[in-house]
Amino acid sequence: MNDKFSDEEKNGLYKAIYSRRDVRSHFTSTSIDDEVLSRILNAAHHAPSVGFSQPWNFILIKDYETRKKIKDSFETERKRSSQLVEEPRKSKYLSFKLEGILDSPINVCVTYDPSRFGPFVIGKSSIPETGIYSVCCAVQNLWLAARTEGIGVGWVSILSNDVLKEVLELPEHIVPVAYLCLGHVEEFAPRPDLETAKWLSRLELKDVVYYEKWERKQNSNWNKIHELIKANLDYA
Amino acid sequence: MNDKFSDEEKNGLYKAIYSRRDVRSHFTSTSIDDEVLSRILNAAHHAPSVGFSQPWNFILIKDYETRKKIKDSFETERKRSSQLVEEPRKSKYLSFKLEGILDSPINVCVTYDPSRFGPFVIGKSSIPETGIYSVCCAVQNLWLAARTEGIGVGWVSILSNDVLKEVLELPEHIVPVAYLCLGHVEEFAPRPDLETAKWLSRLELKDVVYYEKWERKQNSNWNKIHELIKANLDYA
Repeated sequence: MNDKFSDEEKNGLYKAIYSRRDVRSHFTSTSIDDEVLSRILNAAHHAPSVGFSQPWNFILIKDYETRKKIKDSFETERKRSSQLVEEPRKSKYLSFKLEGILDSPINVCVTYDPSRFGPFVIGKSSIPETGIYSVCCAVQNLWLAARTEGIGVGWVSILSNDVLKEVLELPEHIVPVAYLCLGHVEEFAPRPDLETAKWLSRLELKDVVYYEKWERKQNSNWNKIHELIKANLDYA
Repeated sequence: MNDKFSDEEKNGLYKAIYSRRDVRSHFTSTSIDDEVLSRILNAAHHAPSVGFSQPWNFILIKDYETRKKIKDSFETERKRSSQLVEEPRKSKYLSFKLEGILDSPINVCVTYDPSRFGPFVIGKSSIPETGIYSVCCAVQNLWLAARTEGIGVGWVSILSNDVLKEVLELPEHIVPVAYLCLGHVEEFAPRPDLETAKWLSRLELKDVVYYEKWERKQNSNWNKIHELIKANLDYA
């Protein structure tokens, strides 16, 4: 594999990052080509993992009964969580379409197996959470690969992991990390839905970058990049 | 932004995924161009996040004293964790180069702020861990963007988060998620170091994909993709 990236290859990565969306509303019923799905899964499987432990599994789900039970869990959890927010935000929250469990042709549950490759994994003994962090990196690979293939992905986190574990028959020690809905889409929205709905705004990069220590927003050794970031260049 | 990806753009994403490495040994002292670093950070900032909460911060670190303290923490934790593994694996473990804290020109600590945008974040009340999962997705965006720019990244997880919190002056509620070393590299290794060293093997995709429920390795509704995945196609 040629080491250097052409401008177009580099652009492909950035385009995937900036045009990736959390899809809930725009799924079509067109099925996903098996070759495409296997490429997407293989991309996920090539994520970084602590100590090369590859602690993930991907459960592919089409079965209607399974999805219906998970959709029911979504409804229960959405109702429950709506009690946590006051009007008028509550009604706005309840008006959002937040999942595509039954609208998308394929669901994928990505899980974490803390027992993979035995008790000693390099890099995991000081910070055991790095195992689950590896699984999240796999989810992001999957999401970006799907985007380049024209496949939308929606991550549904309004559901009960206990229900997921029961319905998918996960053993006690297995952690469900992500429940994803995959499918072709009518469109990828130009911006995140919650930004368009003015629920929350995109933060500026300058507000999340610190220099040398927490909350240091300026430092004489970082002047040039500080100016660049303040300019808030739109790379998208 | 044009919706469809050209073959070369798509290839760019897959190439980044397959040639990305966790770099420890090949850093050069060449400094990273500020424009390049700002593109990499902006890519991270455009990761998905639960409820669009963008709960990350990026602390850029060059200061020698800071890095020396973190390197000391690495040494302490490496010695401690080596007690957990028997010979001959212990000696092999101790022979690995596992960090580039002082060899790389820039370190980045990526943190999670659970208080970002207040107590109610859409999608976070049923599974609060999704906040930290968002930060991991940002790390993976950073890693892939860096790869396309020819910048190596190494994630150091053999260290104490307590030391990190103290040295970087993180408030109590802020969680350090990833400590990354960034720099130009002599080369990107053709395979992960721990695979080359025969510490662990790459699993086959067919062994991590299940159908409909946990551990179901075959299902009549998934025959075609099952055959494709069994063929273990090398997309890299």
